[in-house]
Amino acid sequence: MRNIKIIIEYDGTKFNGWQSQPNCRTVQGVLERAINKLTDENIKIIGAGRTDGGVHAKGQAANFITNSSIPGDRFFMALNSVLPNDISIVNSEEVDLDFHSRYNAKGKIYEYIIYNSRIRSPIYRNYSWHVPLKLDIKSMRSALKYFKGTHDFRGFMSSGSNVKDTVRTIYDIEISSFAKFIKVKISGNGFLYNMVRIIIGTLVDVGQKNIYVEDIKDIIKSKQRENAGKTAKPQGLYLKEVFY
Amino acid sequence: MRNIKIIIEYDGTKFNGWQSQPNCRTVQGVLERAINKLTDENIKIIGAGRTDGGVHAKGQAANFITNSSIPGDRFFMALNSVLPNDISIVNSEEVDLDFHSRYNAKGKIYEYIIYNSRIRSPIYRNYSWHVPLKLDIKSMRSALKYFKGTHDFRGFMSSGSNVKDTVRTIYDIEISSFAKFIKVKISGNGFLYNMVRIIIGTLVDVGQKNIYVEDIKDIIKSKQRENAGKTAKPQGLYLKEVFY
Repeated sequence: MRNIKIIIEYDGTKFNGWQSQPNCRTVQGVLERAINKLTDENIKIIGAGRTDGGVHAKGQAANFITNSSIPGDRFFMALNSVLPNDISIVNSEEVDLDFHSRYNAKGKIYEYIIYNSRIRSPIYRNYSWHVPLKLDIKSMRSALKYFKGTHDFRGFMSSGSNVKDTVRTIYDIEISSFAKFIKVKISGNGFLYNMVRIIIGTLVDVGQKNIYVEDIKDIIKSKQRENAGKTAKPQGLYLKEVFY
Repeated sequence: MRNIKIIIEYDGTKFNGWQSQPNCRTVQGVLERAINKLTDENIKIIGAGRTDGGVHAKGQAANFITNSSIPGDRFFMALNSVLPNDISIVNSEEVDLDFHSRYNAKGKIYEYIIYNSRIRSPIYRNYSWHVPLKLDIKSMRSALKYFKGTHDFRGFMSSGSNVKDTVRTIYDIEISSFAKFIKVKISGNGFLYNMVRIIIGTLVDVGQKNIYVEDIKDIIKSKQRENAGKTAKPQGLYLKEVFY
Protein backbone atom coordinates (compact mmCIF):
# COMPACT_ATOMS: atom_id res chain seq x y z
CA MET A 1 0.00 0.00 0.00
CA ARG A 2 1.49 3.32 -1.07
CA ASN A 3 0.44 6.95 -0.95
CA ILE A 4 0.91 8.89 -4.20
CA LYS A 5 0.86 12.69 -4.35
CA ILE A 6 0.09 14.29 -7.71
CA ILE A 7 0.17 17.86 -9.02
CA ILE A 8 -2.61 18.56 -11.51
CA GLU A 9 -3.23 21.15 -14.23
CA TYR A 10 -6.69 21.51 -15.71
CA ASP A 11 -8.77 23.73 -17.92
CA GLY A 12 -11.90 24.16 -15.80
CA THR A 13 -14.14 25.19 -18.71
CA LYS A 14 -15.76 21.81 -19.26
CA PHE A 15 -15.66 20.53 -15.68
CA ASN A 16 -18.42 20.91 -13.12
CA GLY A 17 -15.70 21.71 -10.61
CA TRP A 18 -13.49 19.38 -8.61
CA GLN A 19 -15.83 17.33 -6.48
CA SER A 20 -17.44 14.10 -7.70
CA GLN A 21 -21.16 14.40 -8.34
CA PRO A 22 -23.55 11.97 -10.00
CA ASN A 23 -24.07 12.65 -13.73
CA CYS A 24 -21.49 15.44 -13.77
CA ARG A 25 -18.07 15.63 -15.34
CA THR A 26 -15.78 16.60 -12.48
CA VAL A 27 -11.99 16.68 -12.11
CA GLN A 28 -12.10 14.22 -9.23
CA GLY A 29 -14.35 11.86 -11.17
CA VAL A 30 -12.19 11.94 -14.31
CA LEU A 31 -9.03 11.35 -12.26
CA GLU A 32 -10.55 8.44 -10.35
CA ARG A 33 -11.66 6.82 -13.60
CA ALA A 34 -8.15 7.27 -15.05
CA ILE A 35 -6.55 5.65 -11.99
CA ASN A 36 -9.08 2.83 -12.25
CA LYS A 37 -8.10 2.30 -15.89
CA LEU A 38 -4.44 1.98 -14.89
CA THR A 39 -4.69 0.02 -11.66
CA ASP A 40 -8.12 -1.59 -11.73
CA GLU A 41 -8.66 -0.20 -8.22
CA ASN A 42 -11.68 1.84 -7.13
CA ILE A 43 -9.78 4.40 -5.14
CA LYS A 44 -10.93 7.73 -3.74
CA ILE A 45 -8.67 10.65 -4.48
CA ILE A 46 -8.22 13.43 -1.89
CA GLY A 47 -7.84 16.94 -3.30
CA ALA A 48 -6.13 19.84 -1.53
CA GLY A 49 -9.11 22.03 -2.29
CA ARG A 50 -12.32 22.03 -4.23
CA THR A 51 -12.52 24.32 -7.21
CA ASP A 52 -15.82 25.47 -8.73
CA GLY A 53 -16.92 24.86 -12.33
CA GLY A 54 -14.95 27.05 -14.75
CA VAL A 55 -12.07 27.57 -12.32
CA HIS A 56 -8.66 26.45 -13.63
CA ALA A 57 -5.69 24.90 -11.89
CA LYS A 58 -2.01 24.98 -12.74
CA GLY A 59 -0.91 23.30 -9.52
CA GLN A 60 -3.78 21.57 -7.75
CA ALA A 61 -2.50 18.88 -5.37
CA ALA A 62 -4.09 15.55 -4.50
CA ASN A 63 -3.17 12.16 -3.11
CA PHE A 64 -4.46 8.59 -3.20
CA ILE A 65 -3.66 5.23 -1.67
CA THR A 66 -2.88 2.45 -4.15
CA ASN A 67 -1.56 -1.10 -4.30
CA SER A 68 -0.27 -0.56 -7.81
CA SER A 69 3.35 -1.31 -8.56
CA ILE A 70 3.77 1.77 -10.77
CA PRO A 71 6.67 3.76 -9.24
CA GLY A 72 5.57 7.05 -7.64
CA ASP A 73 7.60 9.20 -10.00
CA ARG A 74 6.19 7.38 -13.04
CA PHE A 75 2.53 7.71 -12.17
CA PHE A 76 2.18 11.09 -13.84
CA MET A 77 3.27 9.80 -17.27
CA ALA A 78 1.04 6.75 -16.96
CA LEU A 79 -1.95 8.87 -15.97
CA ASN A 80 -1.35 11.41 -18.75
CA SER A 81 -1.61 8.60 -21.29
CA VAL A 82 -5.21 7.88 -20.25
CA LEU A 83 -6.46 11.37 -19.29
CA PRO A 84 -8.49 13.64 -21.63
CA ASN A 85 -6.68 16.66 -23.04
CA ASP A 86 -8.18 19.24 -20.66
CA ILE A 87 -6.40 17.70 -17.68
CA SER A 88 -2.81 16.64 -17.11
CA ILE A 89 -0.61 15.51 -14.25
CA VAL A 90 2.42 17.75 -13.92
CA ASN A 91 4.26 15.61 -11.39
CA SER A 92 3.88 12.63 -9.05
CA GLU A 93 5.80 11.18 -6.13
CA GLU A 94 5.39 8.63 -3.38
CA VAL A 95 4.82 10.24 0.03
CA ASP A 96 4.41 8.99 3.62
CA LEU A 97 1.25 6.99 4.21
CA ASP A 98 -0.09 9.61 6.63
CA PHE A 99 0.23 12.49 4.11
CA HIS A 100 -3.17 14.13 3.45
CA SER A 101 -3.25 16.70 0.67
CA ARG A 102 -5.94 18.81 2.37
CA TYR A 103 -5.09 18.56 6.09
CA ASN A 104 -1.35 18.97 5.53
CA ALA A 105 -1.58 21.96 3.18
CA LYS A 106 0.13 24.99 4.72
CA GLY A 107 -1.27 27.38 2.17
CA LYS A 108 -2.25 28.14 -1.39
CA ILE A 109 -1.45 30.59 -4.14
CA TYR A 110 -4.17 31.76 -6.53
CA GLU A 111 -3.96 33.95 -9.58
CA TYR A 112 -6.84 35.90 -11.07
CA ILE A 113 -6.92 37.40 -14.57
CA ILE A 114 -9.14 40.37 -15.40
CA TYR A 115 -9.54 41.38 -19.06
CA ASN A 116 -10.16 45.12 -18.87
CA SER A 117 -11.33 46.30 -22.26
CA ARG A 118 -14.48 47.79 -23.71
CA ILE A 119 -14.76 44.88 -26.19
CA ARG A 120 -15.04 41.29 -24.96
CA SER A 121 -12.23 38.96 -26.01
CA PRO A 122 -13.14 35.72 -27.82
CA ILE A 123 -9.67 34.25 -27.22
CA TYR A 124 -9.59 34.88 -23.46
CA ARG A 125 -13.32 34.46 -22.78
CA ASN A 126 -12.90 31.23 -20.79
CA TYR A 127 -9.64 32.29 -19.16
CA SER A 128 -10.36 35.73 -17.73
CA TRP A 129 -13.15 37.92 -16.39
CA HIS A 130 -14.19 40.56 -18.89
CA VAL A 131 -14.64 43.93 -17.13
CA PRO A 132 -15.59 46.55 -19.75
CA LEU A 133 -15.36 49.69 -17.58
CA LYS A 134 -11.88 51.16 -17.19
CA LEU A 135 -10.43 50.21 -13.80
CA ASP A 136 -8.37 52.54 -11.65
CA ILE A 137 -5.48 50.21 -10.84
CA LYS A 138 -3.88 52.71 -8.46
CA SER A 139 -6.93 52.65 -6.19
CA MET A 140 -7.08 48.86 -6.40
CA ARG A 141 -3.43 48.69 -5.31
CA SER A 142 -4.06 51.00 -2.35
CA ALA A 143 -6.77 48.62 -1.16
CA LEU A 144 -4.47 45.59 -0.99
CA LYS A 145 -2.90 46.45 2.38
CA TYR A 146 -6.26 46.04 4.14
CA PHE A 147 -6.58 42.42 3.03
CA LYS A 148 -3.06 41.40 4.04
CA GLY A 149 -2.58 39.74 7.41
CA THR A 150 -4.90 37.83 9.72
CA HIS A 151 -8.59 38.78 9.65
CA ASP A 152 -11.99 37.26 10.17
CA PHE A 153 -13.11 36.99 6.53
CA ARG A 154 -16.69 35.92 7.29
CA GLY A 155 -18.00 38.70 5.04
CA PHE A 156 -15.95 37.31 2.16
CA MET A 157 -17.54 33.87 2.12
CA SER A 158 -20.45 32.71 -0.03
CA SER A 159 -23.33 30.92 1.65
CA GLY A 160 -23.31 27.16 1.27
CA SER A 161 -20.30 26.62 3.51
CA ASN A 162 -20.57 25.39 7.10
CA VAL A 163 -17.07 26.41 8.15
CA LYS A 164 -17.03 27.66 11.77
CA ASP A 165 -13.62 29.32 12.01
CA THR A 166 -13.55 32.07 9.41
CA VAL A 167 -10.23 33.62 10.42
CA ARG A 168 -7.62 33.36 7.67
CA THR A 169 -4.20 34.85 7.01
CA ILE A 170 -3.32 36.41 3.68
CA TYR A 171 0.46 36.34 3.26
CA ASP A 172 0.63 38.43 0.16
CA ILE A 173 -1.60 40.02 -2.46
CA GLU A 174 -0.27 41.94 -5.43
CA ILE A 175 -1.51 43.40 -8.70
CA SER A 176 0.35 43.52 -11.98
CA SER A 177 -0.90 44.67 -15.36
CA PHE A 178 0.08 44.04 -18.94
CA ALA A 179 -1.73 45.43 -21.97
CA LYS A 180 -5.43 44.84 -21.26
CA PHE A 181 -4.81 42.26 -18.54
CA ILE A 182 -4.78 42.84 -14.81
CA LYS A 183 -3.41 39.98 -12.75
CA VAL A 184 -3.97 39.58 -9.02
CA LYS A 185 -1.79 37.08 -7.16
CA ILE A 186 -2.84 36.10 -3.67
CA SER A 187 -1.34 33.67 -1.18
CA GLY A 188 -2.63 32.65 2.22
CA ASN A 189 -2.90 29.85 4.74
CA GLY A 190 -6.37 28.97 3.52
CA PHE A 191 -9.40 30.46 1.78
CA LEU A 192 -13.11 30.36 2.59
CA TYR A 193 -15.70 29.39 -0.02
CA ASN A 194 -15.44 31.96 -2.88
CA MET A 195 -13.16 34.14 -0.73
CA VAL A 196 -10.69 34.85 -3.55
CA ARG A 197 -13.48 35.68 -6.00
CA ILE A 198 -15.21 38.03 -3.51
CA ILE A 199 -11.90 39.79 -2.76
CA ILE A 200 -11.33 40.23 -6.52
CA GLY A 201 -14.91 41.43 -7.04
CA THR A 202 -14.42 43.93 -4.21
CA LEU A 203 -11.16 45.16 -5.76
CA VAL A 204 -12.97 45.63 -9.08
CA ASP A 205 -15.66 47.63 -7.24
CA VAL A 206 -12.85 49.77 -5.83
CA GLY A 207 -11.41 50.20 -9.33
CA GLN A 208 -14.86 51.34 -10.52
CA LYS A 209 -15.36 53.67 -7.51
CA ASN A 210 -18.37 51.69 -6.30
CA ILE A 211 -16.46 51.09 -3.08
CA TYR A 212 -13.99 53.55 -1.56
CA VAL A 213 -10.53 52.36 -0.58
CA GLU A 214 -10.91 53.81 2.93
CA ASP A 215 -14.03 51.73 3.54
CA ILE A 216 -12.37 48.34 3.00
CA LYS A 217 -11.21 48.11 6.63
CA ASP A 218 -14.77 48.58 7.93
CA ILE A 219 -16.20 46.24 5.31
CA ILE A 220 -13.92 43.45 6.52
CA LYS A 221 -14.71 44.29 10.17
CA SER A 222 -18.46 44.20 9.53
CA LYS A 223 -18.27 40.50 8.60
CA GLN A 224 -21.36 41.02 6.42
CA ARG A 225 -21.31 39.55 2.92
CA GLU A 226 -23.59 42.30 1.57
CA ASN A 227 -21.02 44.98 2.44
CA ALA A 228 -18.32 43.41 0.29
CA GLY A 229 -18.24 43.63 -3.50
CA LYS A 230 -19.53 41.33 -6.21
CA THR A 231 -18.25 37.78 -6.72
CA ALA A 232 -15.76 37.68 -9.60
CA LYS A 233 -16.50 35.15 -12.35
CA PRO A 234 -14.95 31.68 -12.04
CA GLN A 235 -13.17 31.61 -15.41
CA GLY A 236 -10.55 34.20 -14.34
CA LEU A 237 -9.41 32.11 -11.36
CA TYR A 238 -6.37 29.81 -11.33
CA LEU A 239 -5.20 27.65 -8.42
CA LYS A 240 -1.47 28.15 -8.90
CA GLU A 241 0.13 26.19 -6.08
CA VAL A 242 -0.56 24.34 -2.87
CA PHE A 243 2.35 24.40 -0.46
CA TYR A 244 3.22 21.98 2.34
CA MET B 1 -23.80 52.66 -50.56
CA ARG B 2 -20.98 52.67 -48.05
CA ASN B 3 -17.83 50.64 -47.48
CA ILE B 4 -17.25 49.49 -43.89
CA LYS B 5 -13.89 48.24 -42.63
CA ILE B 6 -13.87 46.06 -39.54
CA ILE B 7 -11.12 44.64 -37.30
CA ILE B 8 -11.95 41.18 -35.99
CA GLU B 9 -10.77 39.03 -33.10
CA TYR B 10 -11.63 35.35 -33.04
CA ASP B 11 -10.84 32.14 -31.26
CA GLY B 12 -10.20 29.79 -34.19
CA THR B 13 -10.79 26.59 -32.21
CA LYS B 14 -14.34 25.99 -33.35
CA PHE B 15 -14.11 27.54 -36.82
CA ASN B 16 -13.26 25.69 -40.01
CA GLY B 17 -11.07 28.64 -40.93
CA TRP B 18 -12.01 31.95 -42.51
CA GLN B 19 -13.48 31.09 -45.88
CA SER B 20 -17.17 30.26 -46.41
CA GLN B 21 -17.79 26.61 -47.20
CA PRO B 22 -21.06 24.70 -47.39
CA ASN B 23 -22.00 22.93 -44.14
CA CYS B 24 -19.01 24.37 -42.27
CA ARG B 25 -18.84 26.94 -39.53
CA THR B 26 -16.45 29.57 -40.85
CA VAL B 27 -15.54 33.09 -39.68
CA GLN B 28 -16.70 34.61 -42.96
CA GLY B 29 -19.99 32.70 -42.83
CA VAL B 30 -20.73 33.70 -39.23
CA LEU B 31 -19.90 37.35 -40.00
CA GLU B 32 -22.08 37.43 -43.11
CA ARG B 33 -25.00 35.95 -41.16
CA ALA B 34 -24.51 38.56 -38.41
CA ILE B 35 -24.51 41.41 -40.94
CA ASN B 36 -27.61 39.92 -42.52
CA LYS B 37 -29.33 39.89 -39.13
CA LEU B 38 -28.57 43.60 -38.69
CA THR B 39 -29.15 44.92 -42.20
CA ASP B 40 -31.25 42.28 -43.93
CA GLU B 41 -28.74 42.42 -46.80
CA ASN B 42 -27.01 39.40 -48.30
CA ILE B 43 -23.58 40.91 -48.53
CA LYS B 44 -20.24 39.28 -49.21
CA ILE B 45 -17.48 40.19 -46.83
CA ILE B 46 -13.88 40.53 -48.08
CA GLY B 47 -11.17 39.38 -45.67
CA ALA B 48 -7.57 40.58 -45.70
CA GLY B 49 -6.39 36.99 -45.57
CA ARG B 50 -7.72 33.51 -45.08
CA THR B 51 -6.85 31.74 -41.86
CA ASP B 52 -6.99 27.95 -41.49
CA GLY B 53 -9.11 26.08 -38.96
CA GLY B 54 -7.72 26.45 -35.43
CA VAL B 55 -5.79 29.64 -36.28
CA HIS B 56 -6.70 32.67 -34.16
CA ALA B 57 -6.90 36.36 -34.98
CA LYS B 58 -6.51 39.40 -32.79
CA GLY B 59 -6.57 41.86 -35.67
CA GLN B 60 -7.97 40.33 -38.84
CA ALA B 61 -9.26 43.03 -41.22
CA ALA B 62 -12.23 42.85 -43.58
CA ASN B 63 -14.60 45.14 -45.46
CA PHE B 64 -18.09 45.03 -46.94
CA ILE B 65 -20.40 47.25 -48.95
CA THR B 66 -23.74 48.06 -47.33
CA ASN B 67 -26.78 50.28 -47.73
CA SER B 68 -27.39 50.23 -44.00
CA SER B 69 -27.73 53.52 -42.16
CA ILE B 70 -25.73 52.30 -39.16
CA PRO B 71 -22.81 54.77 -38.79
CA GLY B 72 -19.41 53.23 -39.62
CA ASP B 73 -18.01 53.71 -36.14
CA ARG B 74 -21.08 52.11 -34.57
CA PHE B 75 -21.11 48.95 -36.65
CA PHE B 76 -18.75 47.11 -34.31
CA MET B 77 -21.04 47.47 -31.30
CA ALA B 78 -24.09 46.48 -33.33
CA LEU B 79 -22.32 43.41 -34.73
CA ASN B 80 -20.99 42.37 -31.31
CA SER B 81 -24.56 42.23 -30.04
CA VAL B 82 -25.45 39.50 -32.56
CA LEU B 83 -22.15 37.59 -32.84
CA PRO B 84 -21.36 34.38 -30.92
CA ASN B 85 -18.85 34.67 -28.08
CA ASP B 86 -15.85 33.22 -29.97
CA ILE B 87 -15.76 36.19 -32.35
CA SER B 88 -15.88 39.92 -31.77
CA ILE B 89 -15.42 43.13 -33.75
CA VAL B 90 -12.70 45.26 -32.20
CA ASN B 91 -13.34 48.33 -34.32
CA SER B 92 -15.20 49.60 -37.39
CA GLU B 93 -15.04 52.64 -39.63
CA GLU B 94 -16.38 53.88 -42.94
CA VAL B 95 -13.70 53.86 -45.66
CA ASP B 96 -13.51 54.95 -49.32
CA LEU B 97 -15.67 52.88 -51.65
CA ASP B 98 -12.59 51.60 -53.50
CA PHE B 99 -10.90 50.27 -50.35
CA HIS B 100 -10.28 46.51 -50.59
CA SER B 101 -9.04 44.81 -47.43
CA ARG B 102 -6.96 42.23 -49.32
CA TYR B 103 -5.60 44.17 -52.32
CA ASN B 104 -4.79 47.27 -50.27
CA ALA B 105 -3.03 45.44 -47.43
CA LYS B 106 0.62 46.53 -47.19
CA GLY B 107 1.57 43.75 -44.83
CA LYS B 108 0.69 41.59 -41.85
CA ILE B 109 1.99 40.76 -38.42
CA TYR B 110 1.64 37.24 -37.03
CA GLU B 111 2.48 35.84 -33.63
CA TYR B 112 3.15 32.21 -32.87
CA ILE B 113 3.14 30.64 -29.41
CA ILE B 114 5.11 27.47 -28.65
CA TYR B 115 4.55 25.72 -25.32
CA ASN B 116 7.88 24.06 -24.63
CA SER B 117 7.43 21.63 -21.77
CA ARG B 118 7.66 17.89 -21.28
CA ILE B 119 4.04 17.81 -20.08
CA ARG B 120 1.20 19.01 -22.34
CA SER B 121 -0.81 21.95 -21.02
CA PRO B 122 -4.60 21.57 -20.74
CA ILE B 123 -5.08 25.32 -20.35
CA TYR B 124 -3.05 26.33 -23.41
CA ARG B 125 -3.82 23.30 -25.59
CA ASN B 126 -5.91 25.26 -28.11
CA TYR B 127 -3.74 28.38 -27.96
CA SER B 128 -0.20 27.09 -28.47
CA TRP B 129 1.79 24.29 -30.08
CA HIS B 130 3.04 21.81 -27.53
CA VAL B 131 6.68 20.91 -28.24
CA PRO B 132 7.87 18.45 -25.54
CA LEU B 133 11.60 18.33 -26.41
CA LYS B 134 13.69 21.17 -24.96
CA LEU B 135 14.40 23.77 -27.64
CA ASP B 136 17.72 25.57 -28.02
CA ILE B 137 16.44 29.13 -28.30
CA LYS B 138 19.91 30.51 -28.99
CA SER B 139 20.19 28.45 -32.20
CA MET B 140 16.66 29.42 -33.20
CA ARG B 141 17.57 33.09 -32.76
CA SER B 142 20.69 32.69 -34.92
CA ALA B 143 18.52 31.33 -37.73
CA LEU B 144 16.25 34.39 -37.87
CA LYS B 145 18.60 36.54 -39.96
CA TYR B 146 18.31 34.15 -42.91
CA PHE B 147 14.57 34.66 -43.15
CA LYS B 148 14.65 38.45 -42.96
CA GLY B 149 14.54 40.39 -46.20
CA THR B 150 13.30 39.56 -49.68
CA HIS B 151 13.47 35.90 -50.78
CA ASP B 152 11.68 33.43 -53.00
CA PHE B 153 9.84 31.44 -50.33
CA ARG B 154 8.52 28.74 -52.71
CA GLY B 155 9.95 26.04 -50.43
CA PHE B 156 7.93 27.46 -47.52
CA MET B 157 4.51 27.04 -49.13
CA SER B 158 2.11 24.13 -48.73
CA SER B 159 0.62 22.58 -51.83
CA GLY B 160 -2.92 23.63 -52.66
CA SER B 161 -1.99 27.18 -53.59
CA ASN B 162 -1.75 28.38 -57.18
CA VAL B 163 0.18 31.55 -56.44
CA LYS B 164 2.72 32.28 -59.20
CA ASP B 165 4.92 34.93 -57.61
CA THR B 166 6.42 33.37 -54.49
CA VAL B 167 8.80 36.21 -53.63
CA ARG B 168 7.96 37.83 -50.28
CA THR B 169 9.67 40.28 -47.94
CA ILE B 170 9.95 39.63 -44.23
CA TYR B 171 10.38 42.93 -42.43
CA ASP B 172 11.11 41.53 -39.04
CA ILE B 173 11.14 38.25 -37.14
CA GLU B 174 11.97 37.98 -33.46
CA ILE B 175 11.81 35.44 -30.67
CA SER B 176 10.99 36.11 -27.04
CA SER B 177 10.49 33.63 -24.24
CA PHE B 178 8.72 33.64 -20.91
CA ALA B 179 8.49 30.68 -18.55
CA LYS B 180 7.56 27.71 -20.78
CA PHE B 181 6.39 29.88 -23.67
CA ILE B 182 8.37 30.83 -26.76
CA LYS B 183 6.82 33.56 -28.88
CA VAL B 184 7.80 34.29 -32.47
CA LYS B 185 6.65 37.57 -33.98
CA ILE B 186 6.91 37.95 -37.73
CA SER B 187 5.94 40.80 -40.05
CA GLY B 188 6.09 40.95 -43.81
CA ASN B 189 4.47 42.30 -46.95
CA GLY B 190 2.61 39.05 -47.50
CA PHE B 191 2.74 35.37 -46.71
CA LEU B 192 2.29 32.27 -48.87
CA TYR B 193 -0.06 29.46 -47.89
CA ASN B 194 1.20 28.06 -44.53
CA MET B 195 4.42 30.09 -44.87
CA VAL B 196 4.43 31.28 -41.25
CA ARG B 197 3.73 27.79 -39.94
CA ILE B 198 6.51 26.24 -42.07
CA ILE B 199 8.98 28.91 -40.92
CA ILE B 200 8.02 28.18 -37.28
CA GLY B 201 8.30 24.42 -37.88
CA THR B 202 11.73 24.93 -39.41
CA LEU B 203 12.82 27.05 -36.44
CA VAL B 204 11.64 24.28 -34.10
CA ASP B 205 13.68 21.79 -36.14
CA VAL B 206 16.66 24.10 -35.67
CA GLY B 207 15.95 24.23 -31.91
CA GLN B 208 15.90 20.41 -31.88
CA LYS B 209 19.09 20.12 -33.98
CA ASN B 210 17.24 18.37 -36.81
CA ILE B 211 18.28 21.25 -39.05
CA TYR B 212 21.54 23.18 -38.68
CA VAL B 213 21.45 26.96 -38.56
CA GLU B 214 24.06 27.20 -41.33
CA ASP B 215 21.85 25.20 -43.70
CA ILE B 216 18.88 27.59 -43.59
CA LYS B 217 20.27 29.78 -46.36
CA ASP B 218 20.56 26.80 -48.75
CA ILE B 219 17.18 25.44 -47.71
CA ILE B 220 15.53 28.72 -48.72
CA LYS B 221 17.57 28.83 -51.94
CA SER B 222 16.57 25.27 -52.89
CA LYS B 223 12.87 26.29 -53.08
CA GLN B 224 11.96 22.69 -52.22
CA ARG B 225 9.27 22.14 -49.59
CA GLU B 226 10.86 18.85 -48.49
CA ASN B 227 14.07 20.60 -47.46
CA ALA B 228 12.29 22.89 -45.00
CA GLY B 229 11.03 21.77 -41.58
CA LYS B 230 7.68 20.50 -40.41
CA THR B 231 4.51 22.60 -40.54
CA ALA B 232 3.74 24.02 -37.08
CA LYS B 233 0.26 23.30 -35.72
CA PRO B 234 -2.48 25.86 -36.42
CA GLN B 235 -3.52 26.49 -32.81
CA GLY B 236 -0.32 28.38 -31.96
CA LEU B 237 -0.84 30.95 -34.75
CA TYR B 238 -2.37 34.41 -34.27
CA LEU B 239 -3.00 36.98 -37.01
CA LYS B 240 -2.06 40.06 -34.99
CA GLU B 241 -2.47 42.94 -37.40
CA VAL B 242 -3.02 43.84 -41.03
CA PHE B 243 -1.51 47.17 -41.99
CA TYR B 244 -2.46 49.54 -44.80
